[in-house]
Amino acid sequence: MGETIRIGIAGYGNLGRGVEAAVEKNADMNLVGIFTRRSPADLAPLRPQTPVYNMDELAAHEDGIDVLILCGGSKEDLPQQGPLLAAQFNTVDSFDTHARIPEYFESVDEPARENRKTALISAGWDPGMFSINRVYGEALLPDGDTYTFWGRGLSQGHSDAVRRVPGVAGGVQYTLPSQPAIDKVRSGSRPQLETRQKHTRECFVVLEQDAEPAAVREAIVTMPHYFDQYDTEVHFISAEELARDHRAMPHGGFAIRSGNTSSEHAQVIEYSLTLESNPEFTASVLVAYARAVHRMNKQDQFGAKTVFDVPPGLLSPKSAADLRAELL
Amino acid sequence: MGETIRIGIAGYGNLGRGVEAAVEKNADMNLVGIFTRRSPADLAPLRPQTPVYNMDELAAHEDGIDVLILCGGSKEDLPQQGPLLAAQFNTVDSFDTHARIPEYFESVDEPARENRKTALISAGWDPGMFSINRVYGEALLPDGDTYTFWGRGLSQGHSDAVRRVPGVAGGVQYTLPSQPAIDKVRSGSRPQLETRQKHTRECFVVLEQDAEPAAVREAIVTMPHYFDQYDTEVHFISAEELARDHRAMPHGGFAIRSGNTSSEHAQVIEYSLTLESNPEFTASVLVAYARAVHRMNKQDQFGAKTVFDVPPGLLSPKSAADLRAELL
Repeated sequence: MGETIRIGIAGYGNLGRGVEAAVEKNADMNLVGIFTRRSPADLAPLRPQTPVYNMDELAAHEDGIDVLILCGGSKEDLPQQGPLLAAQFNTVDSFDTHARIPEYFESVDEPARENRKTALISAGWDPGMFSINRVYGEALLPDGDTYTFWGRGLSQGHSDAVRRVPGVAGGVQYTLPSQPAIDKVRSGSRPQLETRQKHTRECFVVLEQDAEPAAVREAIVTMPHYFDQYDTEVHFISAEELARDHRAMPHGGFAIRSGNTSSEHAQVIEYSLTLESNPEFTASVLVAYARAVHRMNKQDQFGAKTVFDVPPGLLSPKSAADLRAELL
Repeated sequence: MGETIRIGIAGYGNLGRGVEAAVEKNADMNLVGIFTRRSPADLAPLRPQTPVYNMDELAAHEDGIDVLILCGGSKEDLPQQGPLLAAQFNTVDSFDTHARIPEYFESVDEPARENRKTALISAGWDPGMFSINRVYGEALLPDGDTYTFWGRGLSQGHSDAVRRVPGVAGGVQYTLPSQPAIDKVRSGSRPQLETRQKHTRECFVVLEQDAEPAAVREAIVTMPHYFDQYDTEVHFISAEELARDHRAMPHGGFAIRSGNTSSEHAQVIEYSLTLESNPEFTASVLVAYARAVHRMNKQDQFGAKTVFDVPPGLLSPKSAADLRAELL
């Protein structure tokens, strides 16, 4: 081993904090610093000794950072930052707007290639580890069906939607996979499942004073796209209960491939995650891929990459020979 | 796509039959033929139209086979065939004697490299898919523990051991993962588990006439290495029951990584297989890796490889752009 991989963090929300924690778990990595658009003095990193810089100072660190991990959001930050920073740094990001991935890939590929950088996009768990398992599943069982279930988990987008309902002072939304649907899929029977059969939704809502509970409930459960296609439970709770019981960010889910290798035999492959902290796990994935990106760049593999392009062994700090001896 | 990958099968037992079935499930592959050490006329392939040749005829097919899938056993066949055939063909095999993998890798690497061939060793599910998940698990959760459970599944080695006991006319052995142990691991508590706590064993035995059941049971459950470290149940059944109820070759198991991303948060990753046919699933893995081997050889990646060296996307018949659009 010997070598230390120098990591930078661009953007410091929940994900950035997770990356700071994850780098510390990897003995072959060193955190150069956090780069923020806020005033560095206002930012309190997890570890007091972590250096904090203004985003403008990134260019001055071009030679001191092996991989920059982009921790901004997929809506506003990454479409702008990704292509710019991939021209200067090897990067890893968690761009997760599924429909826009091809377009984002192209926007990052050219600047990275031109500058001999490696830019891994859309890492995390979905997109990311779940995507890898969808590819393995299809390839191993071509005569089969793929099922993805999410949850039980806090959904940021749906929580935001709940909080926009008139009369709602606060709230969170959990996505729950349906146990009967999972059981059917696990049986190998390859069921056709409607949206309503696969997931249910559960909301914990704090009402504004004088708000009408029945009206709020109705507004939530009939909300087009977000809730109308699901069975949704709404629970009204106090602001104290919300603060006490719903601060964690658990998530997870199941990527299942069910297929037939002959007319006699069904086979089921299941990959599942049970996460007490969604951002910390996503961050751990980004950090492992930073190791792979560093190595791929040294192998002259330039341009945009995805998790599909990365051999599993490149994620490990162990040598190929050690992996064969210990883990194969 | 367009191109067809030409596959050969060397050795025709359960695994070879599985490969014959699997090739048919992959539209971009064509089965050139089965190569056997038996008399080709005595061999009945699954599909009557599959050509059957003597193993001696392999050399004459050097230009007609893109990837040769070696379906012999790890004890007698592969240590001899692997290095020889890797000098002539791109190969995939399922060498599964874990302790000898480094030595086998070396023996295949040199002839493959010298002849610009690509030889992927030890594919299947363990070694194979479970190994990949052990590597991903360690890399994503470096502060964690890895647990592998096998079963419920028919174990060939243990069934053979049972059948060697004096007084046994026939029998099979199933390995069962212990549910309390799995539940503990899934909870994220990272338990220390003894061998006896992780698996139990169940034998179905047909006695020879006049054999003493108590003595046979005692000989089985105290057998060193195979049974003495486990809790073992022995059921005595008739030859008819053995033939009727125990012909299938189910298997599977769980590769679980449990780790902590911070002092507050535990995370659990689980990969599980529920296989109605162990050899058919193993064969499906070999066939998917044959596609990857064909591509890696065209990219001048010569020598011995393992599943750790193969990017997931290379297993799929879909293009990288399609994978990004459809499965990421």
